[in-house]
Amino acid sequence: DFVRALEEVHPLFGVSEEDLDRCVEGGIIRFSPHVDKILKNGRLFVEQVRSGTTPLLSVLLHGPHGSGKTALAARIAMDSEFPFCRLVRPVDMVGMNEIQKIQHLQKAFTDAYKSPLNVLVLDNIELIVDWVPVGPRFSSAVLAAIKGLMDNKPPKGRPLLILATTSERTVMHQLQLVFKAQIAIPNVRTQQELAHIMQESGAFDPEGISRAIGDIESTTESRDIGVGVSQVLLGIQTAMQDPDRAGRFAEVMAETIADAHGTSV
Amino acid sequence: DFVRALEEVHPLFGVSEEDLDRCVEGGIIRFSPHVDKILKNGRLFVEQVRSGTTPLLSVLLHGPHGSGKTALAARIAMDSEFPFCRLVRPVDMVGMNEIQKIQHLQKAFTDAYKSPLNVLVLDNIELIVDWVPVGPRFSSAVLAAIKGLMDNKPPKGRPLLILATTSERTVMHQLQLVFKAQIAIPNVRTQQELAHIMQESGAFDPEGISRAIGDIESTTESRDIGVGVSQVLLGIQTAMQDPDRAGRFAEVMAETIADAHGTSV
Amino acid sequence: DFVRALEEVHPLFGVSEEDLDRCVEGGIIRFSPHVDKILKNGRLFVEQVRSGTTPLLSVLLHGPHGSGKTALAARIAMDSEFPFCRLVRPVDMVGMNEIQKIQHLQKAFTDAYKSPLNVLVLDNIELIVDWVPVGPRFSSAVLAAIKGLMDNKPPKGRPLLILATTSERTVMHQLQLVFKAQIAIPNVRTQQELAHIMQESGAFDPEGISRAIGDIESTTESRDIGVGVSQVLLGIQTAMQDPDRAGRFAEVMAETIADAHGTSV
Amino acid sequence: DFVRALEEVHPLFGVSEEDLDRCVEGGIIRFSPHVDKILKNGRLFVEQVRSGTTPLLSVLLHGPHGSGKTALAARIAMDSEFPFCRLVRPVDMVGMNEIQKIQHLQKAFTDAYKSPLNVLVLDNIELIVDWVPVGPRFSSAVLAAIKGLMDNKPPKGRPLLILATTSERTVMHQLQLVFKAQIAIPNVRTQQELAHIMQESGAFDPEGISRAIGDIESTTESRDIGVGVSQVLLGIQTAMQDPDRAGRFAEVMAETIADAHGTSV
Amino acid sequence: DFVRALEEVHPLFGVSEEDLDRCVEGGIIRFSPHVDKILKNGRLFVEQVRSGTTPLLSVLLHGPHGSGKTALAARIAMDSEFPFCRLVRPVDMVGMNEIQKIQHLQKAFTDAYKSPLNVLVLDNIELIVDWVPVGPRFSSAVLAAIKGLMDNKPPKGRPLLILATTSERTVMHQLQLVFKAQIAIPNVRTQQELAHIMQESGAFDPEGISRAIGDIESTTESRDIGVGVSQVLLGIQTAMQDPDRAGRFAEVMAETIADAHGTSV
Amino acid sequence: DFVRALEEVHPLFGVSEEDLDRCVEGGIIRFSPHVDKILKNGRLFVEQVRSGTTPLLSVLLHGPHGSGKTALAARIAMDSEFPFCRLVRPVDMVGMNEIQKIQHLQKAFTDAYKSPLNVLVLDNIELIVDWVPVGPRFSSAVLAAIKGLMDNKPPKGRPLLILATTSERTVMHQLQLVFKAQIAIPNVRTQQELAHIMQESGAFDPEGISRAIGDIESTTESRDIGVGVSQVLLGIQTAMQDPDRAGRFAEVMAETIADAHGTSV
Ligand SMILES: Nc1ncnc2c1ncn2[C@@H]1O[C@H](COP(=O)(O)OP(=O)(O)OP(=O)(O)O)[C@@H](O)[C@H]1O
Ligand SMILES: Nc1ncnc2c1ncn2[C@@H]1O[C@H](COP(=O)(O)OP(=O)(O)OP(=O)(O)O)[C@@H](O)[C@H]1O
Ligand SMILES: Nc1ncnc2c1ncn2[C@@H]1O[C@H](COP(=O)(O)OP(=O)(O)OP(=O)(O)O)[C@@H](O)[C@H]1O
Ligand SMILES: Nc1ncnc2c1ncn2[C@@H]1O[C@H](COP(=O)(O)OP(=O)(O)OP(=O)(O)O)[C@@H](O)[C@H]1O
Ligand SMILES: Nc1ncnc2c1ncn2[C@@H]1O[C@H](COP(=O)(O)OP(=O)(O)OP(=O)(O)O)[C@@H](O)[C@H]1O
Ligand SMILES: Nc1ncnc2c1ncn2[C@@H]1O[C@H](COP(=O)(O)OP(=O)(O)OP(=O)(O)O)[C@@H](O)[C@H]1O
Ligand SMILES: [Mg+2]
Ligand SMILES: [Mg+2]
Ligand SMILES: [Mg+2]
Ligand SMILES: [Mg+2]
Ligand SMILES: [Mg+2]
Ligand SMILES: [Mg+2]
Repeated sequence: DFVRALEEVHPLFGVSEEDLDRCVEGGIIRFSPHVDKILKNGRLFVEQVRSGTTPLLSVLLHGPHGSGKTALAARIAMDSEFPFCRLVRPVDMVGMNEIQKIQHLQKAFTDAYKSPLNVLVLDNIELIVDWVPVGPRFSSAVLAAIKGLMDNKPPKGRPLLILATTSERTVMHQLQLVFKAQIAIPNVRTQQELAHIMQESGAFDPEGISRAIGDIESTTESRDIGVGVSQVLLGIQTAMQDPDRAGRFAEVMAETIADAHGTSV
Repeated sequence: DFVRALEEVHPLFGVSEEDLDRCVEGGIIRFSPHVDKILKNGRLFVEQVRSGTTPLLSVLLHGPHGSGKTALAARIAMDSEFPFCRLVRPVDMVGMNEIQKIQHLQKAFTDAYKSPLNVLVLDNIELIVDWVPVGPRFSSAVLAAIKGLMDNKPPKGRPLLILATTSERTVMHQLQLVFKAQIAIPNVRTQQELAHIMQESGAFDPEGISRAIGDIESTTESRDIGVGVSQVLLGIQTAMQDPDRAGRFAEVMAETIADAHGTSV
Repeated sequence: DFVRALEEVHPLFGVSEEDLDRCVEGGIIRFSPHVDKILKNGRLFVEQVRSGTTPLLSVLLHGPHGSGKTALAARIAMDSEFPFCRLVRPVDMVGMNEIQKIQHLQKAFTDAYKSPLNVLVLDNIELIVDWVPVGPRFSSAVLAAIKGLMDNKPPKGRPLLILATTSERTVMHQLQLVFKAQIAIPNVRTQQELAHIMQESGAFDPEGISRAIGDIESTTESRDIGVGVSQVLLGIQTAMQDPDRAGRFAEVMAETIADAHGTSV
Repeated sequence: DFVRALEEVHPLFGVSEEDLDRCVEGGIIRFSPHVDKILKNGRLFVEQVRSGTTPLLSVLLHGPHGSGKTALAARIAMDSEFPFCRLVRPVDMVGMNEIQKIQHLQKAFTDAYKSPLNVLVLDNIELIVDWVPVGPRFSSAVLAAIKGLMDNKPPKGRPLLILATTSERTVMHQLQLVFKAQIAIPNVRTQQELAHIMQESGAFDPEGISRAIGDIESTTESRDIGVGVSQVLLGIQTAMQDPDRAGRFAEVMAETIADAHGTSV
Repeated sequence: DFVRALEEVHPLFGVSEEDLDRCVEGGIIRFSPHVDKILKNGRLFVEQVRSGTTPLLSVLLHGPHGSGKTALAARIAMDSEFPFCRLVRPVDMVGMNEIQKIQHLQKAFTDAYKSPLNVLVLDNIELIVDWVPVGPRFSSAVLAAIKGLMDNKPPKGRPLLILATTSERTVMHQLQLVFKAQIAIPNVRTQQELAHIMQESGAFDPEGISRAIGDIESTTESRDIGVGVSQVLLGIQTAMQDPDRAGRFAEVMAETIADAHGTSV
Repeated sequence: DFVRALEEVHPLFGVSEEDLDRCVEGGIIRFSPHVDKILKNGRLFVEQVRSGTTPLLSVLLHGPHGSGKTALAARIAMDSEFPFCRLVRPVDMVGMNEIQKIQHLQKAFTDAYKSPLNVLVLDNIELIVDWVPVGPRFSSAVLAAIKGLMDNKPPKGRPLLILATTSERTVMHQLQLVFKAQIAIPNVRTQQELAHIMQESGAFDPEGISRAIGDIESTTESRDIGVGVSQVLLGIQTAMQDPDRAGRFAEVMAETIADAHGTSV
C-alpha cells in the first residue's frame, strides 16, 4: 500500500526534522578547527552509506557533558538530507516498561528499513539503556535489543546510518556495545576558543571579552577552560541578567570550571 | 477547550499555593547574610527564565537536614508569582508503583508546559527516586524519568524553572542527576545566628538568650552550633513547655548538637 | 457524615485501647529512676502536641530486646488520653504485600488526621519495614511510605504524636529514618533493679531474693545483669514451676545473661 | 458454630497425630542421660504453658543434622496431650508461593488460638523460611510472618507452646528470629552411646557390638563418634543386608564419621 | 479406580524405560574394577529398599563431566526391575517456570508413591535447580521443593529409591542438599583403562591401540588420561571418519586431555 | 499430516538459506592456511553427523570480534547441504521475554528433529543468553534451556549438528555451557594476510598495498595487525570514499589497530 507507506514516512520525517532542529537551537559555533573536522568526518560517513558501499554503519559521538554531541549529531543527520531521519531520545521512552521501550526501538529501526536512505540518531544511548553508575544498573533487555538491532543488516537497498551519542564511552566498552566508527567531541579547551564563542554570542564587546577571560584566569589560576560549549552558552545567558555582563560571566564561568574539576574528583 | 484548560490550571495553582505556604509556616528568619544571598540568587534565576533567555533552567538547593531547603525553595517559587507553581513531594507518591510515580511526574511537567511561566518544586528529590543508602537502593525507572523530563525542552514560549531540594548532594553526582545551577543552604553555624533566631521567636528575653548560649557553649565545649534552623525552632517549641525556657532550650540544643555530630561519625 | 465518622473513630479507639492494654500486661514496674524519667519525658512530648505548639512530633523509643519499649510506648499513649490512639504492629501486616502494607499505614495516618488529638504507636518499626540484617534486606517501598507519612504535616488543628519503637537504632540511621526526638530504654542493669522486680512479682521472699542474686553473681562471675525486664519476668514464670523457685530462677537468669552476652559476640 | 469448630479441630488433631507419630518411627532410644534431660525440660515447658503462667512460649530445639530434633519435638508435643497439636513441615509448603506459605502459617496459628491448650511444631524452621547459605537466600516475607506470628499473644485462655527445630542455630541469630527458650540436641558422641543404640536395635550380639566398635576406632583412629542417631540407625539398616553385619556396620559408620568431619571442613 | 491407576503407571513405566535405555546407548564397558564395584553398590542399595528395611533412600552419583553417571544410574535403575522407574531430566523442564518445575517434580514423587517398589532418577540435579556458578545463581524454590520431597517419607509399603547424578558435588554441600548415601564415578584414568575401551569399541587393532596410546603419552608428556568415558567414545567416533584412525584418535584425545586440564585452571 | 510437514520445513529452509547467505556477503577470502583448516574441520564434523556415527554433535566457533565466526559457521552449514538448516540469531529474539525466547529455541530444536539431517547455527550464543559482563548479567532461564536442549539426544535417525559462535569463550566455561568440539577463528595477524585481503578486494594496486602496509607499520610501530577480517573489509570501504585510498586505508587501519589494543587494556 504505497499511499499509506508515504503517509507513514512523511510525518515521521516532519516530526523528526523539528525535533532535530531544536537540538541545534544554539547553532553550531565553529570555535575550533575540531568542529570542522567533526562535521567533515560526519559527511564522509554519510557518503559511505549513501554510495551503498557500507549498507549499515554505526558511529558513536562521545565526549563530556554539554560538549555538543547532540547538536552535532543532529547537524550531521540533517545535512545528509536522507529522506528518513529519526531522533530517538530517552525522554520519549519515559514511563515505558522494558517491552515498550524495545518496541519503540524496533519501530524506529523498522521504519528506517523502508526508505532508500536512512539515518537514526540514538541520543544519550547510555540513558536509553537506563545506565546508572550506582550498582551499576542498566536494562539488559534494552541493551540486548540495541545490540541485536545495531547488528542487523537492513534489507538490500535500504542503507542505514546510525549516529549514537554518549558521555559514557567506557560504559559502552563495559556493556560491549560496539560501534563501527567513533567521533570524539571535545570540550571548549582554550581561552581563544572561549573568546570565539563569546564574540559570536554578540553579548560582549572586545574589551569585555578580554576582561572576562582575564578574570577567569586569575580566579581559577589556570589558562585551561575545560567545560562544554553548552555550559558556556548558559553562562552567557546568566550574565545577560546582570548590568556587569563581563564580570558576572567571569564569576559564573569560574564556578563552572571549579565544579567541573571538583565533581571529577 | 479553553474553559477546561483554565479549570485545570486554576485548582493546580490554588492547591499548590496552599501547599507551598505550609512549607514556610515557620517563616523565613534572616538570621545570616547567607539567607539574603540565597533569596537574591533565586530571584536572578527567576528573571533568567521570565525573560525567556533560558527556556529551561534546573536549580538544586542542597544542604544538611533541616537547614531550610524546602522553605526557601517554596519562598522563591511563590515570590516568582509565575502563573503555574507546583510542588512535588515524596509523600504525594506514597503507595504508587513505579509506573504511577512516573505518570505523576510526567503530569507535573506536562501541566508545566501549559502556562506562559512555570515553576516546579521537586522536594527531597533523593526520596522521589526512593534513594536509601543501604544497598544502596533507588528506583532507576523514576530516576530515568526525571533525567528525561529535566532534559526535555518545554514548548516555545513556555519557559520552566525547576527547583529541586536535596540533603544528599553527592548522591546526585553518583546518580548522574545533573542540574544547570546550584544553591547551597547552610546550617545555623554561629552563636550570633542562633541568638538572632531565638530573639525573632519572641520566646526569650535578652538575658535568657545569653544564658542559654552560654550553657550550650559550656555543655558542648564549643562555640560551633552546626544544626538546621528547623531543629532550632523545634528546640524552642520543646523549651516552651518548661517554666525554665532558657535552661530547657540549652539542654535540648546541646543534645541536638551532640547528636548531629555523633550520627555523622 | 458525622455519625459514620464517629463510628469509624470509636471502634478504632476501642480496639486499639484493648491492644495497647495487652502490651502492658506485665505492668510497669518502677525498678529504677530511669523508668520515671522515661514516663515524664513521654508526658512532656504529649503536652507539646496537646498544646498545639508542635503539630507533628515523632519520637523514637529505642533499646535492647525485651527492655520494655512496647509497654512504655503503650503506657505513654494511653496516659495521653488523646481521643485517637492507634497501635500499628508488624503482625497486623503479616500476609500483606507491599502495596497493602503501605495502604494499611496510610489508613492509620489518615485516621489520625480526623480527631482533635492523635497518637500513633508504630511498634518494632524495623520489622514494619521488613528489616533483616542478612543482606541486609528491607522493603524500600514501605520505608519510603513511612518517611513520607512521618514528614507530612497533619491538617490544621489535628496535631499528631508518633511513638515508634525499635531495637535497631543504628539501622534507623542507616535507613535515614529520622525522628524529631528520642528516648532510650535501658536493660535491667544492677542487682538492686533485679531485686526490685523480684520483689514486686510477689514470687519470692526476701531470703530467696538475696540467695538467687548471690547465685547469679557466682555463676556469671559478675555483678552486671544486662537483660531486659521482659526476660526477667519470663525467668520468674519459669521458676514458678519449680519447688526451689530461687534456685531455678538463678539458674535460668544465669543462662539468659550468658546468652545475652554470647549472642552479642 | 460449635459443630463445625469441632470438625475443624478434630481432623486437624487426627492428621497431625499420625504425622507426629511418623516422626518417631525409629522410637526414642535413651542412649544417654541427655535424652532424659531433654524430655524432662520439654515437660517443664509444657507445664509452664498448661498452667497458664506463660500464655505464649517459643522453644528452639537445635542440633546437628540427624541428631533427632524432629523426633524429640514430636515426642514432647504428643506427650503434652494438649487437645491441639499441629506439625508444620517444609514439605507441606512445596509448590506454594510466598503468599500461600504465609497463609498456611497463619492458618496454623489461627487454628492454635481455638483450643484451650495448643502446641505447634515448626519443623526445620530454616527451610520454612527457604534459607540457603549460598547467597545467602531466604524468604524475607515468610520470615517476617513467622516473627510476627511468634510474637503475637494468643487470645486469653488459649495458651500456645511453639516447638521449632533447626540445624542452623546461628542462622536464627542472623535472621533475628528470637525464641524465648532453647534446647540443644547433641550427636551420638561416645562409644558407649553407640553400643547402647546397637544393642537396642536387636541387630547385633554383644560380640558383634564390641568388634564393630573396635573396627570403627581403628579405621577412624579416634574414639569420638560424632554423628546423629539417625545416621547410626541408617547404618544399621544398611549393615542388615550383609551377612557380616558387624563388619559392614563398622565400614559404613567409619565412612559416615569421615564424611561428617570432611564436609565440615 | 484401578484401571486408570494401571494406565497411569504403565505408560510412565514404558516411556521411562525407553528414556533410561537411551542413557546407556554406549553400553557399560567394564574398563576398570571400579565399574563393577559401582554396580554392586547400586544393587545393595536396591536391596535395602526392596526389603523394606529403609523405606526412603537417596543416593548421589557424583563425578566429573562425561564420566558415565547418567548411564550408570540408568543401569542400576533398570536392573532393579522395580515396577515404577522414572527419569527426571533438566530438558524435560525447559520452558517451565518455577511453579511448573515444582509441580513436575511433585508429580514424579507422587507417582512414585503409588507402586509397591519405586525408583526415581534425578539426572544432573544441579541443573534441575538451575545452578550456574556465575553469581552463583540457582532456583531456591525448586531447591526447597527437592529438599522437601527428598525428606518426605513415602506412604507405608511404598519404598522409594532416589538416584541423583551431579558433576557438582561441592555445590550439593553448599546448597545443603543432603543425600543418605553417595557413589563416586571416576574418570578413565590409566592407559590400561583407555586401551580396554578402545578394544571394546572394535574400532582398533592391537597395534593401533598401542600406537595411539604411545602418541598420546608423547604429546601430553604424561601417562595420565583423566577424561570421561564419554569423551573417549566421542574421540573414537571422530577418529572413525579418518583413514588413519589411530593417529586421528591420538590427536583428538591429546586435545581433549589438554582441554580438560586447561579449563580447570 | 505430510503436506503440512513439508510446508513447515520448506519455508524454514528457504528463509534460513537466505539468512545464511547474507552472513557471508563479504565472501570467504582464504587469506591464510587457517581458513582452509577451519573449513576442512567443519567438513569433518559434518561427515561425522551425516554418517550417523555421532547423532548429536555441538561445535563452538570462537574468536575475537569480527574475526569471521558467523561467516564461517554459515559457510560450513550451507556446504553441508543438509535438508534442514537453521540460523538462530539474537536479533530474532529482540522484544521477546524469557519464556518466548525459550519457546523460540525449543521450536528451532524441535524443527531440527524432523528432517533426516539437520544443522542449527546458534550465532553469538553469549548474546542469546543475554550475557553482559557488567554484573555480570545473563538469562539463567535461557541458559538452562540451551543446556537442556544441547544435551537432548534427537530421535533416532535425525542426527543434528549444532554450530555455535561466540567471542566470549571463557564465558562459556564460566556458564558451564559445554560443547563437544571447538574451532578457533583467529584475527588477521600478519602483513601478508592483510595484503592478501587488500588484493582480493580489488580496491588497491600492488603499489598502494605495499605503501599502505608500510604506513601502518610506521604509525603503529609494529608489524602485527591483530584485527578481524571484518574490520579490514570495513576499512577498505571507508578508504574507497577517498581519492587517496591507500593513505586513507592506512590511517583507518592504524586507528583500528590502536583501538583494538587500547580497548583490551
Ligand atoms: N560547535 C558547537 N558544537 C556543538 N554545539 C554547539 C556548538 N556551538 C554551539 N553549540 C550549541 O551548544 C549546545 C550544545 O548542547 P548539546 O545538548 O548538543 O550538548 P551535549 O554534549 O549533547 O550535552 P549532554 O551531554 O547534556 O547530552 C547546543 O545548544 C548547540 O546549539
Ligand atoms: N532562614 C530560614 N531559612 C529556611 N527556613 C527557615 C528560615 N527561617 C525559618 N525557617 C523555618 O525553618 C523551617 C525549615 O524547615 P525545612 O523543612 O524547610 O527544612 P529542610 O532543609 O527542607 O529540611 P529537610 O532536610 O527535612 O527536608 C521551616 O519551618 C521554615 O519556615
Ligand atoms: N518498667 C518497665 N518497663 C517496661 N516494661 C515493663 C516494666 N515493668 C514491667 N514491664 C513488663 O515487661 C514487659 C516488657 O516487654 P515489652 O514487650 O514491652 O519489651 P520490648 O522492649 O518491647 O521487647 P521487644 O524488643 O521484644 O519488642 C511487658 O510485659 C511489661 O508489662
Ligand atoms: N534418643 C533419640 N532421640 C531422637 N531420635 C531418636 C532417638 N532414638 C532413636 N531416634 C530415632 O532417630 C531418628 C532421628 O531422626 P530425626 O529426623 O528426628 O532427626 P533430625 O535431627 O530431625 O534430622 P534432620 O536434621 O534431618 O531434621 C528418628 O527416626 C527417631 O525415631
Ligand atoms: N563403564 C561405563 N560407565 C559409564 N558409561 C559408560 C561406561 N562404558 C561406556 N559408557 C558409555 O559412556 C557414556 C557415558 O555418558 P554419560 O552421559 O552417562 O556421562 P555423564 O557422566 O552422565 O555425563 P554428564 O556429566 O554430561 O552428565 C554413555 O554413552 C555410556 O553408555
Ligand atoms: N576468511 C574469512 N573468514 C571469515 N569471514 C570472511 C573471510 N573473508 C571474508 N570474510 C567476510 O568478513 C566478514 C566477517 O564477519 P563476521 O560477521 O562473520 O565476523 P564475526 O566474527 O561473526 O563478527 P562478530 O564478532 O561481530 O560476530 C563477513 O562479511 C565475511 O563475508
Ligand atoms: Mg546530548
Ligand atoms: Mg525539606
Ligand atoms: Mg516490643
Ligand atoms: Mg528434622
Ligand atoms: Mg549425565
Ligand atoms: Mg558474528
